[in-house]
Amino acid sequence: MSKRLDTTPKKDEFRMPGEFEQHKQCWMIWPERTDNWRLGAKLAQKSFAEIASAISEFEPVTMGVSKEQFSNARQMLPDYIRVVEMASNDSWMRDVGPTFVINDKGEVRAVDWKFNSWGGLVDGLYFPWDQDDKIAQKVCEIENVDTYRTDGFILEGGSIHVDGEGTCIVTEECLLSKGRNSHLTKEEIEEKLKEYLNIEKVIWIKNGIYNDETNGHVDNICCFARPGEILLAWTDDEKDPQYNISKSAYDLLTNETDVKGRKLEIHKIHIPNPIVITKEESEGVDAIDGTLPREEGDRQAASYINFYIANGAIIFPLFNDEKYDKLAEEKLKEVFPDRKVVGVYAREIILGGGNIHCITQQQPLGKSIG
Amino acid sequence: MSKRLDTTPKKDEFRMPGEFEQHKQCWMIWPERTDNWRLGAKLAQKSFAEIASAISEFEPVTMGVSKEQFSNARQMLPDYIRVVEMASNDSWMRDVGPTFVINDKGEVRAVDWKFNSWGGLVDGLYFPWDQDDKIAQKVCEIENVDTYRTDGFILEGGSIHVDGEGTCIVTEECLLSKGRNSHLTKEEIEEKLKEYLNIEKVIWIKNGIYNDETNGHVDNICCFARPGEILLAWTDDEKDPQYNISKSAYDLLTNETDVKGRKLEIHKIHIPNPIVITKEESEGVDAIDGTLPREEGDRQAASYINFYIANGAIIFPLFNDEKYDKLAEEKLKEVFPDRKVVGVYAREIILGGGNIHCITQQQPLGKSIG
Repeated sequence: MSKRLDTTPKKDEFRMPGEFEQHKQCWMIWPERTDNWRLGAKLAQKSFAEIASAISEFEPVTMGVSKEQFSNARQMLPDYIRVVEMASNDSWMRDVGPTFVINDKGEVRAVDWKFNSWGGLVDGLYFPWDQDDKIAQKVCEIENVDTYRTDGFILEGGSIHVDGEGTCIVTEECLLSKGRNSHLTKEEIEEKLKEYLNIEKVIWIKNGIYNDETNGHVDNICCFARPGEILLAWTDDEKDPQYNISKSAYDLLTNETDVKGRKLEIHKIHIPNPIVITKEESEGVDAIDGTLPREEGDRQAASYINFYIANGAIIFPLFNDEKYDKLAEEKLKEVFPDRKVVGVYAREIILGGGNIHCITQQQPLGKSIG
Repeated sequence: MSKRLDTTPKKDEFRMPGEFEQHKQCWMIWPERTDNWRLGAKLAQKSFAEIASAISEFEPVTMGVSKEQFSNARQMLPDYIRVVEMASNDSWMRDVGPTFVINDKGEVRAVDWKFNSWGGLVDGLYFPWDQDDKIAQKVCEIENVDTYRTDGFILEGGSIHVDGEGTCIVTEECLLSKGRNSHLTKEEIEEKLKEYLNIEKVIWIKNGIYNDETNGHVDNICCFARPGEILLAWTDDEKDPQYNISKSAYDLLTNETDVKGRKLEIHKIHIPNPIVITKEESEGVDAIDGTLPREEGDRQAASYINFYIANGAIIFPLFNDEKYDKLAEEKLKEVFPDRKVVGVYAREIILGGGNIHCITQQQPLGKSIG
């Protein structure tokens, strides 16, 4: 009961809402691959369960789980979290899930982008990705939501952020990467974003967070708090390779306007001290040919920007960083005075290559279909 | 979002509605095991698709499909049928699915019986049955329906029929079989039915259809058309082993009353001429140790009683039997004057050991939860 539509959201007057708009629920996928998550993924599962529980204080959560892990996940999660069977290749619902769009009547549809593991055979992170690429459709089947096909256009949900009013932010590093839509020009890619997100303006910053294996997803470096207001990952340490990246984004955004002609207000959030994989952590991961290894000394792309906006709340990652955890919390409280700000310790998730925003996908409320 | 309840439907005043009451939707499971369905299950899949399509003219249908068959099923089914991922060991939703119960407010819950492949290690039909036994829970998770645990009580949905007003019909052959609840007395089994279906009276007929591998499920030999009215599989051929079985049931039912004290009106429907597996049909099935083989010359338990009552319709099996197909249709039209009677050719399904009622499970309408 999910029809495939051959038009586009723009033609049908559906738009992607901002994450800060009202949700029906949050979707996640249960982690289990032992070549990405150490110690049989048991620690990651505990973290995912904690994050799902934190979000479910504010909105319903549905967890997609493979048949092999179904009973275990059902037991590890509280019973008010819905668990549905869903095969995957890993657990990044932001990137493999549907991008929901909505119209003025409150009808909900979704864009089902093509997914190729963040770069396919060029620089993708694992092979195969066949089950991941079916996730968006499976979510929409369960929810009776019709989907737009994108004619092979490759995109992950983490590589876009919209303000819900016609402006989108992306990084050149990701959207112009060789492993995605390299047969298209920048203008053609922008055209696709405009058609499928129903936006009018794309703001291109250069790069994402230093050493981000997703080719610099925007959702790890900056996001909209609301129309006209942006949060940006920052560092004061000019020797940190992150400094020039953040500085360049800051300068660009400072001189930009959104589609409504507004100047952007920019809030900086300092990144944590570098998160580096330990020997013990590295040794807990299975070595499998074709999967990005997790090696001792690797710096992970940790950033507080990778939070999830739930109904009435911000769920953000903690790194056990005495100084910057606290600063991030204060900044988030200041920028979101009407939301409860909840930190969840997330080292196990950044060890797998992402964070809270990467493992979640919001479904807008829309009207009840009954 | 499906809580496990430790009480019983009787205690909470939920009852199993008759199949003829209003449905929200019909659940099915996609067939694929090649040791039960010939020629790679391709012919059975076509039949299941035809039956799902026929039902979906009258009520929504959701098809549970393994990850391996997801794309194929999605393509073979019309897009107004919902397809959700669901691992199984075979495709008998009547027997492995939840038994939904409802209360006066229209709230819906379900009973999640223990399933052991129609007899477990005593005379079960295949091993293992671990995925089948999770189906009821998975359906209820998707639908946000709370479930009653039955403390290990084994039952298949096809072994019971209720009138929705307090009466249930079962067969002794099945409910007293060695492979199910042989540690319980007949009275204790009756007590379980009363608690979990919220009924007051159990009518026990002796046997199901001749050679029925389910140990004689009641849903192949008789069912309620409405309270006080029963349809019974019949044969006029006194030499057919089915004759004495049907005659015994007829005599017993003629002398019975339901819980309201009503005499039962009994409508006979003649069975088709014997359906016997051909050499070609037998050779199309993979031989696997531990699975009931499909051998040339085996007589299948074909019966027109194995129909599904949809909203406003009866979907019943055709066997390409010139005489009895027609008689069955006429009888069903006479007994259900307000429903459209739709026949679907179902030889491929009876070759696998059941029929339309066995592969479907109704979910009552209840109130919208929004």
